[in-house]
Amino acid sequence: MKTVLDNAAALSKGETNSQTLTEQALQRMNDPEGQGAKVFIRRNDARAMNLAKASDLVRTAGHPRSPLEGLPISVKDLFDLTGETTLAASKAAESASPAAADAPVVRRLIAAGAVITGTTNMSEYAFSGLGLNPHYGTPLNPYDRAIGRIPGGSSSGAAVSVADGMAIAAIGTDTGGSIRIPSALCGLTGFKPTAERIPRRGSLPLSTTLDSIGPLAQSVTCCAIVDAVLAGEDPEAIPSALPISGLRLAVPQTVVLSDMDAAVASAFERALSRLSKAGAVITDLPMEEFGELGTINARGSIIAAEAYHWHQDLIEHSGASYDQRVRTRILKGAEMSAIDLLRLLDARLDWRERVAAKMHGFDAMIMPTVPVVAPALAPLEIDDELFFKTNALILRNPSIINFLDGCALSLPCHEPCSAPVGLTVAGLSTSDRHVLAAGLAIEQVLTLQ
Amino acid sequence: MKTVLDNAAALSKGETNSQTLTEQALQRMNDPEGQGAKVFIRRNDARAMNLAKASDLVRTAGHPRSPLEGLPISVKDLFDLTGETTLAASKAAESASPAAADAPVVRRLIAAGAVITGTTNMSEYAFSGLGLNPHYGTPLNPYDRAIGRIPGGSSSGAAVSVADGMAIAAIGTDTGGSIRIPSALCGLTGFKPTAERIPRRGSLPLSTTLDSIGPLAQSVTCCAIVDAVLAGEDPEAIPSALPISGLRLAVPQTVVLSDMDAAVASAFERALSRLSKAGAVITDLPMEEFGELGTINARGSIIAAEAYHWHQDLIEHSGASYDQRVRTRILKGAEMSAIDLLRLLDARLDWRERVAAKMHGFDAMIMPTVPVVAPALAPLEIDDELFFKTNALILRNPSIINFLDGCALSLPCHEPCSAPVGLTVAGLSTSDRHVLAAGLAIEQVLTLQ
Repeated sequence: MKTVLDNAAALSKGETNSQTLTEQALQRMNDPEGQGAKVFIRRNDARAMNLAKASDLVRTAGHPRSPLEGLPISVKDLFDLTGETTLAASKAAESASPAAADAPVVRRLIAAGAVITGTTNMSEYAFSGLGLNPHYGTPLNPYDRAIGRIPGGSSSGAAVSVADGMAIAAIGTDTGGSIRIPSALCGLTGFKPTAERIPRRGSLPLSTTLDSIGPLAQSVTCCAIVDAVLAGEDPEAIPSALPISGLRLAVPQTVVLSDMDAAVASAFERALSRLSKAGAVITDLPMEEFGELGTINARGSIIAAEAYHWHQDLIEHSGASYDQRVRTRILKGAEMSAIDLLRLLDARLDWRERVAAKMHGFDAMIMPTVPVVAPALAPLEIDDELFFKTNALILRNPSIINFLDGCALSLPCHEPCSAPVGLTVAGLSTSDRHVLAAGLAIEQVLTLQ
Repeated sequence: MKTVLDNAAALSKGETNSQTLTEQALQRMNDPEGQGAKVFIRRNDARAMNLAKASDLVRTAGHPRSPLEGLPISVKDLFDLTGETTLAASKAAESASPAAADAPVVRRLIAAGAVITGTTNMSEYAFSGLGLNPHYGTPLNPYDRAIGRIPGGSSSGAAVSVADGMAIAAIGTDTGGSIRIPSALCGLTGFKPTAERIPRRGSLPLSTTLDSIGPLAQSVTCCAIVDAVLAGEDPEAIPSALPISGLRLAVPQTVVLSDMDAAVASAFERALSRLSKAGAVITDLPMEEFGELGTINARGSIIAAEAYHWHQDLIEHSGASYDQRVRTRILKGAEMSAIDLLRLLDARLDWRERVAAKMHGFDAMIMPTVPVVAPALAPLEIDDELFFKTNALILRNPSIINFLDGCALSLPCHEPCSAPVGLTVAGLSTSDRHVLAAGLAIEQVLTLQ
C-alpha cells in the first residue's frame, strides 16, 4: 500500500487518476471475500465517484488543492455528513435527524481534494479500545485472519480500511487511544493531536474534553499532511525530521512497561537498541506520576461523566438497543457528583504540570502503544470479564497521553510478517509539530532494513 | 474625597507626599468614632509607612512608577499577603498556613507604587451580596449612619474604606456582584472586569470560573487606572470617553427592571433622560433570555458547586465556626451531580451566545445595579428569611453579568445627599476597554450639575 506522497506523485505524473484510485478502493470495499461489509457503515459510491471526477478536472485545470487531491479517504462513523444520520455505529441513534451540514473536518478534507469513500465502523459511540461492535460486526485485523484477531478500537474500521487498501488514509478519533490502538494492532501509523487543535464540531462526542481527531495512515508524513488539512494549516509546510543524533527520548518506567507480552517486549527492546545505535539519547525516567492515575480517577472518569451527560436521555429512551458493555461503562458517569468532577479536573491540572516538569529537556517520550499484540476476537465476544480486563489493559498506555492533553504518534516497530507492535512517540500539549518531527526521525531508523 | 489623578497631581506638584497621605488614611482607620475597626481585618501600619517612605524616595528620584505611586490602597481580606494567613473574614481559616507569597495582583499594586494599608472586611468567604459579617461586625454604609444601613457585599469593607477616606481605591472581588453592589449602595464607582483578564492566583476562591478582581473607587478613570495595573497593562494608556452623541445603549426589559423601589426607579429614569438628551440612543431590548436563568440554575449554581469543592474538607472539620448562612449556601453544592454541572456549563455557553447576538450593534447595556437602596442592617441580622430574600434581590441584576462572563461598571446616578443608587454599564466578555470608554462618556453626563 502506497503513501499519500507516492499516490500524489503518481497522480501528478498522470500514471493514474482519482477515478481509477477511487474505483480500486470501491472494488476492495465490494470484495465479498474481504472485510468491506464490516468496515463501512455508510457508503455513497456515487458521491465518491463525483468527487473523484471533480478532482480529476481540478487537476486537469492545473490547480491541485493539496497533497490529498484525488485520494480516497474514509471517515469514522461519528462525523456528520450532510443529509445522513450520524450513528457512531449504534442502533439507538438511527431515528436521529440527518446532519444539516458536514463536520468542519469533512469540509476541510473535501476542500483539500479528498474523496470521501464512506464512514467506518467503530466501537459503539467510540467507548472501548478493542473495536468490537455487536450491531455491525467486527472487522478483522489484517494480521493472521485465519485466527481472527481484533482490529483494536474504537477506530476499528478506519484501521482496516487503510490496511486493506479501501482508503489511503482514514480519519479517526482518539479519546483514550482510539486512533493509536488500532494503528498499533494493525501495523499502521496513527496520530492523536492535541485535542483542541482540530475542531470537534459536527462529530458525535464521547468526551468533549478529551476527544481528539486525527489520521491513521501508512507513514508519519501521511499523518502530518492529513493533520495539517484537519487543523486548517498548510499541508505543504509539514515538519521535517529532527536529527536522530542527540534526539533526547525519555522512557517512563512506571505503569507503561508492565504486562508486556514477549512479542511486544522484544520489539520494544529492539526499537530502543536501534534508536540508541543511531545516536538517540535514551533516558529511563521514573515518572512515578503515571502511578497516580488510578487514585485520581477512583471516583469516576472525565469520559464517563461527559459521556453520560450526552447519553442520559438516549439511554433512558433506547438503552436496550445499546451495546450493553458500552451502556454499562457510560452509566458509571451517573454516580459522579459535581465535586467529584471538579476535584478530578483540578487533580488533572496539577498532575499535568508535574509531568510536564519531568519532561523538561526531552524531545519526546517513547513507550509501547499497547503491551500485547492483537488478541483473538472470539473469546472477547463471549466473555464479559475477559473483555473488560483486556480493554483496560489495551487502553492503559494511550489514555495517559489523553489525560496529559498531549499528542502522540504510534508507529510500527515489529519485524515484517510478524504480529504488529506499535511504538508511541508522545509529547506535551501543543507540541504536535515537534512530536511529528521526532517521529519522522524515529521512523527513518525503524524502517531501515 | 479626591480621585487617583487628583492625588497623583498633588503628589507630583509636591503639595503632599505619600507619607502624609498614608498617615491621613491611618488616622481615619484609627478614629474610634469611625468604622475603621470594622472595615479592616488585617493591618500592618509599619509596612504601610515603609511603603510610603519608599514611594516618596522613588518620586524624589524622579521615577514615579504609575499614577498609583504613593496612594493608600486597601485589598479585600481574601488576597494573600506574604507571611499572613488569608482569612476571607472567616474564623474557620485561622489555623491555615501563612501565605508564602503575595497574590500577583498585590505584587502588581506594590510594583506600581501603591501603599497597601491593610485587608478589608467582607461577607465571609465572599458568599453574599449584603456584606454582613457575624465574626468581625458589619461596617456601616456611609449614607444615613443614624439608621445604620448595610454597605452591600461581599466587598463591604472595600467600599467603606474608600467612602470614609481610608484608601483612595480598594481592590475587591466580584463573583455575582460583590464589587458593584457595595459600589452602588455606598455611592462609589466599581468595575468588574472579564474574569480571566486578572490573575486569580493567590486569592481564596469562591468560584474559580466566575471570580473577578477589580477596583472600587471615586470615578471611572480611577477604576480604569487600577484595572490596568491589576491586569498588567499600561496604566498611562487607559481608554478615553466615547462620544455620548450616538452612543448606543440597550436597556434590557426582562428581570432587571422589576421590584425597583421609588428612589431607584426615579434615579434610573432621570439617568436615562439625561443620557438621551445628551445624544445617546437608548433602546429597550426585550432580552427574554434573562428570564431563563432561574431554570438554567434550577439544579444548582456554578458558585455552589465550586465553593463546595473548595470548602468540603474545611466544613467537615470546622463547619460550626462558619457563618451558618454562608455554610447553608455552600452546602447546596453537595447536592449537584457531575452532569448537573456539565449541563449547566453547556446551557451557559448556549445562553451566552444568544445574549451576545442580541447585544450586536450596541455599545453597552444599562440597568440599575441594585433595584433598592441600601436597607437597614439590624432587621437583616436577626431574620434569616428576610436575609435570604434581600440577598437574592440584591444579587439578581449583577449576577447576570457574571453568568454572561461579561464586564460591568457601576457608577453613581443619584442626586447629591440622597440614598446612593448605582447605574450599571455592562458589556460582553473581553469588551472591558469599550465598557470603560462608554462609562467615561456616561459619567460625564451624570456628573454635570
